[in-house]
Amino acid sequence: MSRFFQDLTPLSYAPESDGLAFRHYNPDEVVMGKRMEDHLRFAVAYWHSFAWPGGDPFGGQTFERPWFGETMEDAKLKADIAFEMFDILNVPFFCFHDADIRPEGASFAESERNFKEITDIFAAKMETRKTRLLWGTANLFSNRRFMAGAASNPDPDVFAWSAATVKLCMDATHALNGENYVLWGGREGYETLLNTDLQQETEHMGRFLSKVVEYKHKIGFKGAILLEPKPQEPTKHQYDYDVATVYGFLKRFGLENEVQVNIEQGHAILAGHSFEHEIATANALGIFGSIDMNRNDYQSGWDTDQFPNNVPEVALAYYEILKGGGLTKGGTNFDAKLRRQSLDAEDLIAAHAGAMDVCARGFKAAAAMLEDGALETAKQQRYAGWQTPQAAAMLDMDLSGIAGLVDPDSAGPQPRSGRQEILENIVNRFV
Amino acid sequence: MSRFFQDLTPLSYAPESDGLAFRHYNPDEVVMGKRMEDHLRFAVAYWHSFAWPGGDPFGGQTFERPWFGETMEDAKLKADIAFEMFDILNVPFFCFHDADIRPEGASFAESERNFKEITDIFAAKMETRKTRLLWGTANLFSNRRFMAGAASNPDPDVFAWSAATVKLCMDATHALNGENYVLWGGREGYETLLNTDLQQETEHMGRFLSKVVEYKHKIGFKGAILLEPKPQEPTKHQYDYDVATVYGFLKRFGLENEVQVNIEQGHAILAGHSFEHEIATANALGIFGSIDMNRNDYQSGWDTDQFPNNVPEVALAYYEILKGGGLTKGGTNFDAKLRRQSLDAEDLIAAHAGAMDVCARGFKAAAAMLEDGALETAKQQRYAGWQTPQAAAMLDMDLSGIAGLVDPDSAGPQPRSGRQEILENIVNRFV
Amino acid sequence: MSRFFQDLTPLSYAPESDGLAFRHYNPDEVVMGKRMEDHLRFAVAYWHSFAWPGGDPFGGQTFERPWFGETMEDAKLKADIAFEMFDILNVPFFCFHDADIRPEGASFAESERNFKEITDIFAAKMETRKTRLLWGTANLFSNRRFMAGAASNPDPDVFAWSAATVKLCMDATHALNGENYVLWGGREGYETLLNTDLQQETEHMGRFLSKVVEYKHKIGFKGAILLEPKPQEPTKHQYDYDVATVYGFLKRFGLENEVQVNIEQGHAILAGHSFEHEIATANALGIFGSIDMNRNDYQSGWDTDQFPNNVPEVALAYYEILKGGGLTKGGTNFDAKLRRQSLDAEDLIAAHAGAMDVCARGFKAAAAMLEDGALETAKQQRYAGWQTPQAAAMLDMDLSGIAGLVDPDSAGPQPRSGRQEILENIVNRFV
Amino acid sequence: MSRFFQDLTPLSYAPESDGLAFRHYNPDEVVMGKRMEDHLRFAVAYWHSFAWPGGDPFGGQTFERPWFGETMEDAKLKADIAFEMFDILNVPFFCFHDADIRPEGASFAESERNFKEITDIFAAKMETRKTRLLWGTANLFSNRRFMAGAASNPDPDVFAWSAATVKLCMDATHALNGENYVLWGGREGYETLLNTDLQQETEHMGRFLSKVVEYKHKIGFKGAILLEPKPQEPTKHQYDYDVATVYGFLKRFGLENEVQVNIEQGHAILAGHSFEHEIATANALGIFGSIDMNRNDYQSGWDTDQFPNNVPEVALAYYEILKGGGLTKGGTNFDAKLRRQSLDAEDLIAAHAGAMDVCARGFKAAAAMLEDGALETAKQQRYAGWQTPQAAAMLDMDLSGIAGLVDPDSAGPQPRSGRQEILENIVNRFV
Ligand SMILES: [Co+2]
Ligand SMILES: [Co+2]
Ligand SMILES: [Co+2]
Ligand SMILES: [Co+2]
Ligand SMILES: [Co+2]
Ligand SMILES: [Co+2]
Ligand SMILES: [Co+2]
Ligand SMILES: [Co+2]
Repeated sequence: MSRFFQDLTPLSYAPESDGLAFRHYNPDEVVMGKRMEDHLRFAVAYWHSFAWPGGDPFGGQTFERPWFGETMEDAKLKADIAFEMFDILNVPFFCFHDADIRPEGASFAESERNFKEITDIFAAKMETRKTRLLWGTANLFSNRRFMAGAASNPDPDVFAWSAATVKLCMDATHALNGENYVLWGGREGYETLLNTDLQQETEHMGRFLSKVVEYKHKIGFKGAILLEPKPQEPTKHQYDYDVATVYGFLKRFGLENEVQVNIEQGHAILAGHSFEHEIATANALGIFGSIDMNRNDYQSGWDTDQFPNNVPEVALAYYEILKGGGLTKGGTNFDAKLRRQSLDAEDLIAAHAGAMDVCARGFKAAAAMLEDGALETAKQQRYAGWQTPQAAAMLDMDLSGIAGLVDPDSAGPQPRSGRQEILENIVNRFV
Repeated sequence: MSRFFQDLTPLSYAPESDGLAFRHYNPDEVVMGKRMEDHLRFAVAYWHSFAWPGGDPFGGQTFERPWFGETMEDAKLKADIAFEMFDILNVPFFCFHDADIRPEGASFAESERNFKEITDIFAAKMETRKTRLLWGTANLFSNRRFMAGAASNPDPDVFAWSAATVKLCMDATHALNGENYVLWGGREGYETLLNTDLQQETEHMGRFLSKVVEYKHKIGFKGAILLEPKPQEPTKHQYDYDVATVYGFLKRFGLENEVQVNIEQGHAILAGHSFEHEIATANALGIFGSIDMNRNDYQSGWDTDQFPNNVPEVALAYYEILKGGGLTKGGTNFDAKLRRQSLDAEDLIAAHAGAMDVCARGFKAAAAMLEDGALETAKQQRYAGWQTPQAAAMLDMDLSGIAGLVDPDSAGPQPRSGRQEILENIVNRFV
Repeated sequence: MSRFFQDLTPLSYAPESDGLAFRHYNPDEVVMGKRMEDHLRFAVAYWHSFAWPGGDPFGGQTFERPWFGETMEDAKLKADIAFEMFDILNVPFFCFHDADIRPEGASFAESERNFKEITDIFAAKMETRKTRLLWGTANLFSNRRFMAGAASNPDPDVFAWSAATVKLCMDATHALNGENYVLWGGREGYETLLNTDLQQETEHMGRFLSKVVEYKHKIGFKGAILLEPKPQEPTKHQYDYDVATVYGFLKRFGLENEVQVNIEQGHAILAGHSFEHEIATANALGIFGSIDMNRNDYQSGWDTDQFPNNVPEVALAYYEILKGGGLTKGGTNFDAKLRRQSLDAEDLIAAHAGAMDVCARGFKAAAAMLEDGALETAKQQRYAGWQTPQAAAMLDMDLSGIAGLVDPDSAGPQPRSGRQEILENIVNRFV
Repeated sequence: MSRFFQDLTPLSYAPESDGLAFRHYNPDEVVMGKRMEDHLRFAVAYWHSFAWPGGDPFGGQTFERPWFGETMEDAKLKADIAFEMFDILNVPFFCFHDADIRPEGASFAESERNFKEITDIFAAKMETRKTRLLWGTANLFSNRRFMAGAASNPDPDVFAWSAATVKLCMDATHALNGENYVLWGGREGYETLLNTDLQQETEHMGRFLSKVVEYKHKIGFKGAILLEPKPQEPTKHQYDYDVATVYGFLKRFGLENEVQVNIEQGHAILAGHSFEHEIATANALGIFGSIDMNRNDYQSGWDTDQFPNNVPEVALAYYEILKGGGLTKGGTNFDAKLRRQSLDAEDLIAAHAGAMDVCARGFKAAAAMLEDGALETAKQQRYAGWQTPQAAAMLDMDLSGIAGLVDPDSAGPQPRSGRQEILENIVNRFV
């Protein structure tokens, strides 16, 4: 055990505890026939928890971590600490970018060697632990070479570099038995249309993604390929704007059966949607994959990546997830940063523990709402008219035929109450 | 001539005038080989100009128009005034909803009779004028029967009523030789997911739109079918969120070659996009149709539908339109309301005239930028790397093959300046 | 009993009930030494509940109420129903505008007569009930005469009309023993600076408000005078933007000890603040008065005036209120509209009952957090350095003197963790 | 001459040039009786132009400048380059923070020595040049010691350190004959109310500002003290939210005659205002000082600090400035960053030159609008009613008296058109 976490020991389920413990998350509790751990499939994000220094556009590093630095020694210490935290939190999964686990080398080959050395360490650690890899991904946005995008870069050499990097990360994810491989379009977008060929850039992105899918099959990777939508930031306009946009993109390139989405609450908000809207949309379109359960601040216009803290909101998200069949290959990843003033190791543990409890409460409420059935019954009654043979037949008629069904002497159908407040009251019985 | 416009006479092109005249819009001026009138294809929206009473959520009617009322006499006077205004403004086109041209009847049949009587009056007026119909559409959102949507309504009777209404409006549009038929998803969306079956509702919308396309072919209507995206308002969340969402919707139902989009600046802004982004996206996806050239206020979070007044913004929009081939069947419609304090007939004329001048200036600047070529040349240079045979070949290789192209000893491609400010300076030479 | 509410009977506290009842709001439960009814001081808003027809910018009336109409008979029926609802909900307070309780007359005198006749009816009803008046106010924004403002109108005749109307409403509020009198600056703002003398308009508003304060004292009204901040809507820019702006306005006219604020959650959100921020600011500035506990939708850019439904948010608001000493003359008003699809009488009751329960839960959580003390203790520790005599002395030194305190060899103070996530976890123990 | 700008020579006024030149900004052109240089008073911001590395929350440094580094040699080269750019651009002013001109030392004393050595170099350079200092300021937000604020920090040692730093920067600004001294409340605000004593923090800010004013008088500094409002970013909520908030803050501490505001367009937008609104408000309240003429992107929710490029917007800002008497001690500062992809020295020059041209066009249009007088005449007509003796008398009457002026038989004043579109058309004749 390193000295970073000092006397922190693995957290247990202790509803009455005043200290660091889970008050609501009980991995072994069975809900709707399955253990909570298997429902929620929590994951820690390596990047935000171990590599982010606490900077923002107006100030630099605030965190002082013993592993900060650019040597392989630093990277190995970071890996040790990371797995200690996975143990403390008892999370079954983690996620990583290549760039947050290894120092950038002076050449592609050196970066590759660094990367493999660390992923080998991961593999060794995972042999003796429950920890699994929810997803791997490639950071194609931090280094200045990616400033104008990766797959969508005006420079084909960047496209090539990106492809080589993704191959490397897919290989590692496969080797570590990752359950998914994620592509977040970091700088796939534009700052100004004046210098942008939007059609060519998205065409190249489509080609790139097709190659990723092809490579997955070639190497026999059984995980899902996921795109993570985001509307803006870092670029003024990102191509993978939201779930509906990604769906259109996948259809354009015939990939809608090969690729799903990893939906982040904060990105939903930035795009003008609720989190549950994005999940429901993905379910309706058949492309739901996984979630990043980190929120934005409603009064901030940028991606704050905060840990979740509002149970009713989380409950509505899990309600849509459960209606869609739950998290199967996907999981609940915390792509969340500590606030930059939260300097201590204890903050890091408490933030995750609090978030896991919020998710547990929200999830249990969602399950209870679904088992109760009042909401779904009300919805079925609202649409009951469509269950008649006449309604079904109408769907197959043409405009003229349907027009013939309208009684010319009628003043029109009478509306019925949408009962929104009553339904919101029902939700509030459970959250 | 009615007494409403008093001594207002048709506006002429008079660059030095201090009164009501066009200072920039000269319909006969040839730009890029075509008359400005034929490029810009201006249209007046019947609804906002003649039927909107000036109300908002906090107050009622402010306008006092001699034709306000619910009788056919009122509707006929309104038609007279409308065509007088088309003459005064010398606009080649207008657009209408069924509900703004006729009084609602006590039954479907009565509404239909009212509607046909007015469209016959339109036909008669159009025989002796240049005025043409840019598009017709059905108002499926104002009456309380549509409070929960039209094609997406939980009540199949509303679906039927909507289909019958659209048929009627398509017939009239066809009879009046309309150049397009528009569907704006007024209340196709939801207030709360708690009472909404998002999948079924969008499925029904897809069916409905397929029927519209089928009916267009059946009656031989040669105009385009257009969807108008909007992200929210009146509903909390509209299904036709933005251009990319509509594209995905069309692909889902195999309609991407049958339906295009009518893009409104204000709706682009509400969805988090610039107007030019939505146009460029539609061009890239092959679904650009027409525009509603009315803006929102950047400090208001709702659809203000104001007349355009910022030439540089308008120029960037027309620049994207011209790069896509210009307005062919589409036009420049003003789906714009007077501010509710702009009570006078003169306000109505001045608002349109000022907007036409703003568009004319923006359009001429856009044409000049395109003819100058500096922007497009700079863009081609930025992407020049993709013109090499090696780059083209790379697009056909798989991930492994591309990875083999990367020099393992390289530190990565060197980025080149994106030159955004220099390009913005170039734009400012023209606007 | 009218037939509108049919068989609805007064709601009782019945935590286990599945029907219309209070599950959390128990008026007689004592919290922190006071009955919940006396803490929360719930009020129903006459306007939204009984006069709003369900319209929005894209559609007209959806509600069909037996009292809709412009006769005194209608107004009397409306009053009967209103007081029936106060009884059903067991709310101790209501609020009204002049315009929602009486038909507009053909003259000022007729409107005045109508108004007085209804307020006399109110007085009679209140004699036999617990119902009291939380506040009265004048609607100076719906009629077209107010389209350019009331006190800030360019036309002095509108200023005069507004003054006469406010006098009337203050007299009635006084006669009904109202606890407060509210001014919401409905259209006190502007649509465009081009036609606006911002300095003169705000100067007139200051004069107007001074007269209101003077009149209050003249008639011996003991209630508080409250301004309700709102940043925009209906005008593009409202003068009473937010709490801090109102404070500056009061200071400008020397009214900061005479006038307080009525804060609405939705208006806080529109202005870019959290609700609790606005309350904390008002407390810090000594101008907290009362609240309108209705929320906006985070994905809508306009004032949706929805009933509250998120307990953690409500808890944080009451936490700030309790820290400031609680609601004394103020109350918890629901300036909230049913969604326009919520057509039924049951919706109206359920919406209020659900909101009262949400408030009760939030309030009890806030009280528990305060009694627990963990949050306030942590805050005191964070600022403990300021309790030293040296720190106190420093506040009285000049810049040079303070500069002399800095050790020139020091690298600067070491920051300490802000512990945000840990504090959020503490909140989540209570909500 | 260093090699950074290579063969770039000072820009001249050359309206027909295709290269780097001013097409609109002619410093010696007389407008409204004064040279444009003396009207516009352009300033370059040292920080963004010479110290910002091109990073954003998702990526690091993109710029490679020969002076990047932490040695005094680097700082001196930076100073050389900066003054070369001032010469190339022919700007009369610059602005700086302490932190961007010198390396941070290991102690306060070392930072002080570094700072003084560089400001001495500035002084020497300014002796032989026209370059003057528009304002100096202290960076109290980048170093981690300021992570929880400066004057509002919970730790009194940070308050002291901040005071000592401001003293140092005021001394230097005074020595360099700066025209103003600016305080931007970098992290004076909060991340969460849970750990914040809003009242104490703002009280400390008021004390701090009082000391700054006192010190100004003590040392005989004749420049203005300016606060720069900003609503959020870096903190979730900044105390100096907007102009109206700052006014209330100044009134609270009796500083409204001692302190003015430096208004930034981008910060106005973030706060929900137009730039011209903030200027007009400052004028109405008598606290207008200076401007930062850098814009935000309307589709981004964060502070993008872009160079201005929209002439009509800039014109409306200068129109309000001119109506308030113009820039006297204040100036037009570009607190603007290159886009992080704009890597070249040419981008830096072109961005400033283009911005200066945009400002020159906007300014000349504003002056022409004012000289033309049509807008102001229309406004006076709108308010003409207030010029009558009766209206003036009414302002001095009490509510009862005014109520007596209303004709009881009147149906109310008739509204008149606000003519917004006509006024916007007038503006478009000039921009
Ligand atoms: Co994020
Ligand atoms: Co994410
Ligand atoms: Co619109
Ligand atoms: Co439109
Ligand atoms: Co409201
Ligand atoms: Co309110
Ligand atoms: Co800024
Ligand atoms: Co600034």
